Amino acid sequence: MPQEAMTKAKIGVLGASGYTGTELVRLLLRHPGAEIALLTADRRAGQEMREVFPQFSPFTLPRLVSIEGIEWTKTGLDLAFCALPHGTTQKVVKELLASAPTTKVVDLSADFRLADPAVYARWYGHEHQAPQLQKEAVYGLTEIYRSEIKGARLVANPGCYTTSAELPLVPLLAENAIDPDEIVIDAKSGMTGAGRAAREEMIFSEVSEGFHAYGVGHHRHMAELDQEFSKAAGRAVTVSFTPHLVPMNRGILSTIYVRGVKMSPQELHAILLKSYLNEPFVQVLPFGEMPQTRHVRGSNMTFIGVAKDRIARRAIIGSALDNLVKGASGQAVQNMNLMLGLPETMGLEQVALFP
Amino acid sequence: MPQEAMTKAKIGVLGASGYTGTELVRLLLRHPGAEIALLTADRRAGQEMREVFPQFSPFTLPRLVSIEGIEWTKTGLDLAFCALPHGTTQKVVKELLASAPTTKVVDLSADFRLADPAVYARWYGHEHQAPQLQKEAVYGLTEIYRSEIKGARLVANPGCYTTSAELPLVPLLAENAIDPDEIVIDAKSGMTGAGRAAREEMIFSEVSEGFHAYGVGHHRHMAELDQEFSKAAGRAVTVSFTPHLVPMNRGILSTIYVRGVKMSPQELHAILLKSYLNEPFVQVLPFGEMPQTRHVRGSNMTFIGVAKDRIARRAIIGSALDNLVKGASGQAVQNMNLMLGLPETMGLEQVALFP
Amino acid sequence: MPQEAMTKAKIGVLGASGYTGTELVRLLLRHPGAEIALLTADRRAGQEMREVFPQFSPFTLPRLVSIEGIEWTKTGLDLAFCALPHGTTQKVVKELLASAPTTKVVDLSADFRLADPAVYARWYGHEHQAPQLQKEAVYGLTEIYRSEIKGARLVANPGCYTTSAELPLVPLLAENAIDPDEIVIDAKSGMTGAGRAAREEMIFSEVSEGFHAYGVGHHRHMAELDQEFSKAAGRAVTVSFTPHLVPMNRGILSTIYVRGVKMSPQELHAILLKSYLNEPFVQVLPFGEMPQTRHVRGSNMTFIGVAKDRIARRAIIGSALDNLVKGASGQAVQNMNLMLGLPETMGLEQVALFP
Amino acid sequence: MPQEAMTKAKIGVLGASGYTGTELVRLLLRHPGAEIALLTADRRAGQEMREVFPQFSPFTLPRLVSIEGIEWTKTGLDLAFCALPHGTTQKVVKELLASAPTTKVVDLSADFRLADPAVYARWYGHEHQAPQLQKEAVYGLTEIYRSEIKGARLVANPGCYTTSAELPLVPLLAENAIDPDEIVIDAKSGMTGAGRAAREEMIFSEVSEGFHAYGVGHHRHMAELDQEFSKAAGRAVTVSFTPHLVPMNRGILSTIYVRGVKMSPQELHAILLKSYLNEPFVQVLPFGEMPQTRHVRGSNMTFIGVAKDRIARRAIIGSALDNLVKGASGQAVQNMNLMLGLPETMGLEQVALFP
Repeated sequence: MPQEAMTKAKIGVLGASGYTGTELVRLLLRHPGAEIALLTADRRAGQEMREVFPQFSPFTLPRLVSIEGIEWTKTGLDLAFCALPHGTTQKVVKELLASAPTTKVVDLSADFRLADPAVYARWYGHEHQAPQLQKEAVYGLTEIYRSEIKGARLVANPGCYTTSAELPLVPLLAENAIDPDEIVIDAKSGMTGAGRAAREEMIFSEVSEGFHAYGVGHHRHMAELDQEFSKAAGRAVTVSFTPHLVPMNRGILSTIYVRGVKMSPQELHAILLKSYLNEPFVQVLPFGEMPQTRHVRGSNMTFIGVAKDRIARRAIIGSALDNLVKGASGQAVQNMNLMLGLPETMGLEQVALFP
Repeated sequence: MPQEAMTKAKIGVLGASGYTGTELVRLLLRHPGAEIALLTADRRAGQEMREVFPQFSPFTLPRLVSIEGIEWTKTGLDLAFCALPHGTTQKVVKELLASAPTTKVVDLSADFRLADPAVYARWYGHEHQAPQLQKEAVYGLTEIYRSEIKGARLVANPGCYTTSAELPLVPLLAENAIDPDEIVIDAKSGMTGAGRAAREEMIFSEVSEGFHAYGVGHHRHMAELDQEFSKAAGRAVTVSFTPHLVPMNRGILSTIYVRGVKMSPQELHAILLKSYLNEPFVQVLPFGEMPQTRHVRGSNMTFIGVAKDRIARRAIIGSALDNLVKGASGQAVQNMNLMLGLPETMGLEQVALFP
Repeated sequence: MPQEAMTKAKIGVLGASGYTGTELVRLLLRHPGAEIALLTADRRAGQEMREVFPQFSPFTLPRLVSIEGIEWTKTGLDLAFCALPHGTTQKVVKELLASAPTTKVVDLSADFRLADPAVYARWYGHEHQAPQLQKEAVYGLTEIYRSEIKGARLVANPGCYTTSAELPLVPLLAENAIDPDEIVIDAKSGMTGAGRAAREEMIFSEVSEGFHAYGVGHHRHMAELDQEFSKAAGRAVTVSFTPHLVPMNRGILSTIYVRGVKMSPQELHAILLKSYLNEPFVQVLPFGEMPQTRHVRGSNMTFIGVAKDRIARRAIIGSALDNLVKGASGQAVQNMNLMLGLPETMGLEQVALFP
Repeated sequence: MPQEAMTKAKIGVLGASGYTGTELVRLLLRHPGAEIALLTADRRAGQEMREVFPQFSPFTLPRLVSIEGIEWTKTGLDLAFCALPHGTTQKVVKELLASAPTTKVVDLSADFRLADPAVYARWYGHEHQAPQLQKEAVYGLTEIYRSEIKGARLVANPGCYTTSAELPLVPLLAENAIDPDEIVIDAKSGMTGAGRAAREEMIFSEVSEGFHAYGVGHHRHMAELDQEFSKAAGRAVTVSFTPHLVPMNRGILSTIYVRGVKMSPQELHAILLKSYLNEPFVQVLPFGEMPQTRHVRGSNMTFIGVAKDRIARRAIIGSALDNLVKGASGQAVQNMNLMLGLPETMGLEQVALFP
């Protein structure tokens, strides 16, 4: 069917040897509107994707190339996913968009998420290297910024923790339904959130059969949360946020403690139910039911639950997603669909893999 | 699109609250040629599927009903998957086919796998209750019995361990390439192979952080292996088979020790490579590479590897599949596709979920 | 050495086939001052301990007997550990102490933890069946009630979650250092906390590779927390407490959000450091370091960490213990040592098993 | 008690920051006859042990030092455990024994296990750098070489896989009870066997939820197996050996397929039962029972089971141990006890930690 093939968008994945990169390949391989035209991976350049991730053995994919020396105009990419480490990203995206200005970019790093150059400089310790693009970039929390994303050339895909916390909290803050000064987010993540680069604290025997918090009091996702919560609330918001590592591969559960402003937990639930009634990828569970990460594994879904605390007017919110899908590559494809004028759910219909 | 909906086959899943049942639902929900028309689960009758498996919360599915009192002709099923426990199955399939003779059945239990009534009685301790159907049933190892399956009304879907061992060994035995008296199969399975019925030895704390063999010297899958290996070799074959439990959810790895008859390990590899060259769901890895279960997780693939032992003419074969997909529900859908005249790979294109 | 043997205390474990029971056996087997004289397990009566827990194969232990018909005076027990289910416990302890009034009891169930009969009735839905003993029982949080425990005949061993939260919070509340109305306890437990009785939600495939909260807004450990925190603060305290299940066997981590009253996080840390300076089983980590459950696995230690939140005067406290040791059987042995006049650390010197 | 302290042996652990090193520290901390006098760790020199392994926070231990520049005579060590990487070991042991000839050494690396210099050179690709010591070294499989170990200055502690396979097979081969040409060893190990040095294939997300073989047809433990089996059988023996990785921390299970020579499986069992009747650390289970790794976790025990295969005269042997204890550091302490004239079980009485 060459006719159909011609209509597929040409997609590049920059940084295909990491976990978000390979997850993009998994999703794009079965995406009816996309063709994988370019895969880069500097350390693995020259290798086949199957040598890096053997699950791709049955498939034909472009050989991995180095990002160095790519002539972006010649690639003819309609859209590039950038799944590169922090730092590298700004430079690559700047060059790519300078030489191929009609190519669109969804960036999965943190580089373009913070809109304010001063905030960026404070959290990252240096000036942003592409301030014009920082200004241009649209924050890619799809359910909240859908219309802006449709017209965007550069989308900054949100972090996994932040997506998990923002989906339930942004509507509540926007309606002044909760006290913005009394939010505690206790978040728990599977290990794929730490990426594939080997470090001692990530090896199996250090992770299995144990549990701990990390980045206590200082984690870069805080800046992203502050930005979005402040925007939603219309004033400065600073939340308490503590991430933990769970001995599992995929999944984030955020347990969020909030206090209703003249609102009961049931009313908070009603706001979320209404906000996400027609959203294909956000499921608000019946009041009192709490989500489990296993029930969204491998899918682009976020499950949200609201329960009442035994202390009056306090509510406990649970928010579960797969950090590699809705928390990264799935939301990136969702954004791609919008940017390319494709149906938003295309290629993202997988049912969760449980057990 | 009512037009298209009318062309979809009406499918029933009998026993939808177990793991193979729910895996069928996962696959059928996204199958373009199938419509889930009936879901049964005796203990959970009256409930919604989402109460039993919350991952289905976003989907509309028939409410669970009891199998008692179903009028099979009224269901209008084109095909029923039978994912019921041993014993119940014979009775249900007999009644179903008696009252609705044009409905087709793929049975995922062990009830119809053994063709010889005497062998059945010896391994199960009682006479078969539907001997006519036992005769009629076609063994559903798709790659080997494809043409018989196409015309079958009743397919006995193979076991997970047996699929894993038969795919590499049947072609080798059929070509007299290995010594049939010197086969050792050391098999390792994830815990979903034990089903969802709670027993003490299956709880997390009994399984996690440990490894052991079970059913040593006597496991019912042996009868199935004997049958298929003897048929392939053209003489009686008895293999050494020992199953083990791995603290993981999905996956079977069979490590198989064989001895070439005037054949090197490389020649054994060549036979398998040729046998499965055009098979969509069997991937023979380059000589010397061994498969990992994680690379087929959630997919219908079997990965097979052949390596040479350091002892001359002996080879070590690795065979990896997902016990709930190619080892059960995926192969069942593959068989359904053949029985209903649909493309064999329809609805089974998922890429493995790794990491 | 019969001389030495005669000086050992005769100990019974009632309910030896559960996890806290078997953990008592593990600890008592190597306790120089204790002799295991009686093991009961109703469902497994008549069996050897090694049939129930094969790790005891190398050891000689009394055969398991039914608790029915035991003549307590004839057993000559110095002390009995009661590791029986809720409900059964009150009846058994009442009979035991009535017929053998000099035997001491450490009860690991929740039956004697709540001192107020009205509170007990409200949380458990029925009147207490041994109200005199309820009054007599001493709450067994060793570090806090050491002197009362020394003279007690009946000790109510605290819960695992409660031990984990009370050790850091009781000293802070007692010194009015934190706001009692602003405490959030987000607790995470390994699966052994759920015991050994098989239920569907406990099987490996339901637990592995996932994370979730449970008992949200209502968990019986809340009553125990309220009691102890109110006593420490000298006024009614109600905390927010949410337990979660981690796919691991052992360990509890409580992440606790508190607000200093005219005190900085560093000052809160100093209070805890001073409180536990000479305690053999509580280790307060250097300020800013957070504990991991894996580092206390198999030991009777609690590790406590204090870090500052980025919001002024708020602190984040981490408290890690092994739910089967300091959270249950280890603390029970610690209490036994005090009750029998033995050195408090005897038999509890195991170093944590990591990795 | 300075009196007692003076009688304790002064022990060094060279390479204390790895898993076998830290496991030695765990065991020695509670060993009544040993005092930890020296801990080395080149990369972590200058740090406290608690910074490398926080479970040691409650203990006072010597600060980690670099092995460079140690004056061995000044350390006054009675015995040094050498837990260093291959290669480094030969050099260090040579220097240590040259300068402090009365210090004894238990080496946990593979450097001194192979007695034949030619075999060593073939498997390791270079000449041995301390051939005199290679000749002097005693192979430390305690139950088999007890008398030689007692008088040894240098003991080569066996590998974890090899200990697991040799304990059941050496007595059977020594009695000509099994066919030496028909042994298949299918071995499965937890991840701590791979050490603590971070490599991509060891990170949690690459290991969890999957199973695979490695080193197929070529693994250095083969040379060690050949040596010991040939010695026991009195003629050259080459076995089929395939290791696998299990997603768990600790434990090795070897499933061993053997064929009796005029002996039934029951008779093979009887030989092992008799061989290990009085051994404190080898438990032969009743005929037909198979061991599980979880039941020896954290202990120095090996559990061995023998069952009959359904093929006449073939037996299946299971052998389970904790790779860090009996498979490494525990056996090393067992050897130390013999070398220093201490009771063999001293400091090794821990009961397995299950669940």
